[in-house]
Amino acid sequence: MLNYAINMHSIADPVPVGVMGASGYTGLEVLRVLSGHDGVSVRFAASDSEAGRPTPVSGLTFVPVADVRADEVDLVFLCLPHGEAARWVERKGGAGARLVDLTADHRPGSGRETGAVYGLPELNPEEVALARLVANPGCYPTGVILSLAPLARRGRIDRARPVVVSAASGVTGAGRSAKRELLFGEVFGDFRAYGLGNGHRHLKEMRALLPGLGLLFVPHLLPVARGILETIAVPVEAGVDAAEVKALWRSVYGGSRAVRVTEEPPTLARVANTDVLELAAFDNPGLEAPTVTVVAALDNLGKGAAGQAVQNMNLMFGYDAGRGLRC
Amino acid sequence: MLNYAINMHSIADPVPVGVMGASGYTGLEVLRVLSGHDGVSVRFAASDSEAGRPTPVSGLTFVPVADVRADEVDLVFLCLPHGEAARWVERKGGAGARLVDLTADHRPGSGRETGAVYGLPELNPEEVALARLVANPGCYPTGVILSLAPLARRGRIDRARPVVVSAASGVTGAGRSAKRELLFGEVFGDFRAYGLGNGHRHLKEMRALLPGLGLLFVPHLLPVARGILETIAVPVEAGVDAAEVKALWRSVYGGSRAVRVTEEPPTLARVANTDVLELAAFDNPGLEAPTVTVVAALDNLGKGAAGQAVQNMNLMFGYDAGRGLRC
Amino acid sequence: MLNYAINMHSIADPVPVGVMGASGYTGLEVLRVLSGHDGVSVRFAASDSEAGRPTPVSGLTFVPVADVRADEVDLVFLCLPHGEAARWVERKGGAGARLVDLTADHRPGSGRETGAVYGLPELNPEEVALARLVANPGCYPTGVILSLAPLARRGRIDRARPVVVSAASGVTGAGRSAKRELLFGEVFGDFRAYGLGNGHRHLKEMRALLPGLGLLFVPHLLPVARGILETIAVPVEAGVDAAEVKALWRSVYGGSRAVRVTEEPPTLARVANTDVLELAAFDNPGLEAPTVTVVAALDNLGKGAAGQAVQNMNLMFGYDAGRGLRC
Amino acid sequence: MLNYAINMHSIADPVPVGVMGASGYTGLEVLRVLSGHDGVSVRFAASDSEAGRPTPVSGLTFVPVADVRADEVDLVFLCLPHGEAARWVERKGGAGARLVDLTADHRPGSGRETGAVYGLPELNPEEVALARLVANPGCYPTGVILSLAPLARRGRIDRARPVVVSAASGVTGAGRSAKRELLFGEVFGDFRAYGLGNGHRHLKEMRALLPGLGLLFVPHLLPVARGILETIAVPVEAGVDAAEVKALWRSVYGGSRAVRVTEEPPTLARVANTDVLELAAFDNPGLEAPTVTVVAALDNLGKGAAGQAVQNMNLMFGYDAGRGLRC
Repeated sequence: MLNYAINMHSIADPVPVGVMGASGYTGLEVLRVLSGHDGVSVRFAASDSEAGRPTPVSGLTFVPVADVRADEVDLVFLCLPHGEAARWVERKGGAGARLVDLTADHRPGSGRETGAVYGLPELNPEEVALARLVANPGCYPTGVILSLAPLARRGRIDRARPVVVSAASGVTGAGRSAKRELLFGEVFGDFRAYGLGNGHRHLKEMRALLPGLGLLFVPHLLPVARGILETIAVPVEAGVDAAEVKALWRSVYGGSRAVRVTEEPPTLARVANTDVLELAAFDNPGLEAPTVTVVAALDNLGKGAAGQAVQNMNLMFGYDAGRGLRC
Repeated sequence: MLNYAINMHSIADPVPVGVMGASGYTGLEVLRVLSGHDGVSVRFAASDSEAGRPTPVSGLTFVPVADVRADEVDLVFLCLPHGEAARWVERKGGAGARLVDLTADHRPGSGRETGAVYGLPELNPEEVALARLVANPGCYPTGVILSLAPLARRGRIDRARPVVVSAASGVTGAGRSAKRELLFGEVFGDFRAYGLGNGHRHLKEMRALLPGLGLLFVPHLLPVARGILETIAVPVEAGVDAAEVKALWRSVYGGSRAVRVTEEPPTLARVANTDVLELAAFDNPGLEAPTVTVVAALDNLGKGAAGQAVQNMNLMFGYDAGRGLRC
Repeated sequence: MLNYAINMHSIADPVPVGVMGASGYTGLEVLRVLSGHDGVSVRFAASDSEAGRPTPVSGLTFVPVADVRADEVDLVFLCLPHGEAARWVERKGGAGARLVDLTADHRPGSGRETGAVYGLPELNPEEVALARLVANPGCYPTGVILSLAPLARRGRIDRARPVVVSAASGVTGAGRSAKRELLFGEVFGDFRAYGLGNGHRHLKEMRALLPGLGLLFVPHLLPVARGILETIAVPVEAGVDAAEVKALWRSVYGGSRAVRVTEEPPTLARVANTDVLELAAFDNPGLEAPTVTVVAALDNLGKGAAGQAVQNMNLMFGYDAGRGLRC
Repeated sequence: MLNYAINMHSIADPVPVGVMGASGYTGLEVLRVLSGHDGVSVRFAASDSEAGRPTPVSGLTFVPVADVRADEVDLVFLCLPHGEAARWVERKGGAGARLVDLTADHRPGSGRETGAVYGLPELNPEEVALARLVANPGCYPTGVILSLAPLARRGRIDRARPVVVSAASGVTGAGRSAKRELLFGEVFGDFRAYGLGNGHRHLKEMRALLPGLGLLFVPHLLPVARGILETIAVPVEAGVDAAEVKALWRSVYGGSRAVRVTEEPPTLARVANTDVLELAAFDNPGLEAPTVTVVAALDNLGKGAAGQAVQNMNLMFGYDAGRGLRC
């Protein structure tokens, strides 16, 4: 891991940052979150396809990617298409700036050995604080890992049975590139499973963080713009119940503004346009094999992408992790 | 069970039928399916709330429920609110007509002992053909039971682990009564789990037809008007794979126009406005505990209600089971 | 105009037809309508992008456009992208088959002089019956022209004031090509006007059929898959009221199954998935300048495209114009 | 008009306010806007139907309407059902607090003579600042009046022809009461005109503020949760063009954060969840009778209700009118 000296910033001196790939859904959302953050100043929003046009939220004009002077900012958010972020890092090495990469390029399972720190702020804040390059987690893994990691680490999961994750995501999770299967006329009124055969690329990321668990992961495409709901059948050890699950979560996440344990089932509408992950757990009386149902809801563009990236940035700058988040 | 002599009808002589509760979503859908059926003639469409207004599809005028002369038709579809169908049957006893009850009132788990025949036409056609009163299955159970029954009966399911069913339904599945939580402003852009704690009332029906299986059932409310998608993690015995599951289905359902085994994953859009259940199965290589993922899709108002009711009617009249269906 | 001898077909002998560009939204809809038509047999469904795959409705396999033998059918529906239909006709001349062109290539205002007959079956059925090449009207013009032509021809419209048309269409009206602005993530929850400045290309077609009228036409993009609603403020001559408008429509359209005059305002949901245009008219008491509000609703893929194409085909084959339509 | 001495508040001393009818769509939105306003402190959120439950945004608990002590706050927002606000005011007289009434009860055309000040902050800020009771404008009239008033007052509109307004609103505009026609299953995939015959109750309000204009107003129900788009065909005097219209707007609204004149057509998505009204104007070359098309977009719950109510409150408290708005 490439560490980095923590630099503490005063409020009076907003830190300069930039966004690469700023006209996609995650890039726009980073701009949106940062517009409510009083500790940073966005210096550039780079997008080749929109170069020369005004950005919708920050009062900037999109600039071509090649024109970016990364050395003039302290941190760059990489929101480029998958693959291009790695190439940019290889070529530029960050050019002096610290990096939060929102693509899959530096995550576990990418096949790259880059010394990037996987940035789930609730689990490894100290590492993130020192990192030069943070791999921002995928949207689906954020919910699954934060749901399961506290239980797995305490041995509360029965490893003889698989954890069954049924996940559903709004369409912005698939990016903003023009593809026929993402046209409104195709998605409207539809609902479909995909990645069948346990083949979704996010599985590697989940397995890396949840070693030893059997994971069956079935994602679905929801006819809404944003939000993820994950319904997880967790095979638990005898005696473990929903109350214990919630207590464990509260003990681990109590200090985070970005994770909320609820009694009512979380819903997409409650978390849309926020940077919060909501978690709830329910017993299933009558089932012979003890199983707790977990429901996790987050905005794929919020806690699942831009909100989490800003949490990571906060840690890297010595700010409170929840600063500027929409909670 | 109350049996009934099969009466064969000639094409030249359409059988008179009627619909009670014809202005709800299932009642309207029964009228819609019957409008494409050349073997019946709809004599009345009863609805107190719409009495006096024209029906949208059959050229009739809605009449008050109390004005219905059930003895003038050979069969009545009961699409009344849950509870009212049982009261009507108790009071009238069918008044001479055979009955297909689309409510939950006579299904397994209703707590009633009425001699009704549970009508899943692919599983017990001979019983249906002779029945005087058919309990039309619930929308969720139709997909779950038809997915699992052939496997369960052949001992292909590992009963030490629960079957995990994640199901999602369009809003018409909740009926047409005005409730705040079903308002457009509440459901739009949302997705939510409900019935948590394995408490959905359809579970009794599934358990009655799938004895000995552990069933974990989590339904979700989809922001679409119609359609159900059920994603089922089936714990199978060692050596059982998706190919065997599909072969079993084909051997049992090969003769039915209303069940289709597909290689591609079924989607809501493919089955909306049809009377077909689509089934597909997928292996999950790498999981230690062998598990097959089943995806089942049906229209909650089609094969999940009106289409199945017409299948049952066809069997009761000696018609081909698939006659008039939208397949 | 290129005429053609009417050839009467018996029911016992379905007429062979084909579809070019069969995997776009209009092509698929032509296949769908024809699947319920007992007087034709679809011999080919051509699509380069889907070649080799099964068609969703007719049991055929898509074939490459270049492989089509147009001389083996009596009629070809051209559902190619705009521009390609004209090129195909120029190159092939129809290759012996009569043609119904669903693109804009041969419509008034296309700038081409091709001898095509503009096919609005309610207005010029005799011409259509004899045509070799029919230009199927645009979706927006179908509603506007059928609303206004009977009034304009009888001098009921005050030409000193413009007719103001506010129209809204579902997204399939823009075709099935992958464009960013038609992605689900862009359209969901949105509603927007376009073609501002009275610049929509359908205006030429409307003006050609409604000479002398001032037309202000503002289309909007609706977040639904299909359907068009047109709300038209018609400046009428003194003394003209909604009752007279409806009487005029009924006198002209009384014989058509595809046009329905209603008292209640037409809605998108009522006409979706049908081949019907619904028309209603309303007085506006209190306005000094007499103005009747017309509401017209049709499915852009039904009466606005495929349904109307089949009506035209019916006339060309000597069938009843409404045969096989979804009314 | 009942005037009131302006009381200037310092930032250090947030003003206590309350919300009556806080669980409906407008009440919740007032809570949402106020949660981002640093000059007020919400003391109560009253709702009989939700009494005892937590409010979703402000950390309060809903209290019964009867328990409210209005004299403990400086201002009350009335978000009760139409009719109940007037009754509450009659009975309580505000109980010492100043009032912003978001219902129709005190607007022009309500038939009441109450001395309420009609609060369109861009048009009469001085009156609002002194008012004891402000009638917050309707959502549709907000867009229509702000579009047309500057033109009408300067004599730029040709009064021999009617202004034709085609308006479309998301479903929350109809309130949160359970009605069958507002169920998701009814609205999904639909689009419909209503209030035909120029009969919408908002017309009285528009006519009162735009005397002497002929107004033809046709509202439509959009299948989205929130937002209004109004497309207005404005008959202008000879020589008036879109550039002049925009210049007039800019001269009148230049100082308001809540009105934005744009070159691109406003869209629903751009203004959803904001408190901004966007206005654009377009010429229609070729039309003999000169007509400018205006497109106005606002969130019915933002600038069309809660945002505007907070603007009015700001003026009443001597704050900057745009303080705390989502612009």
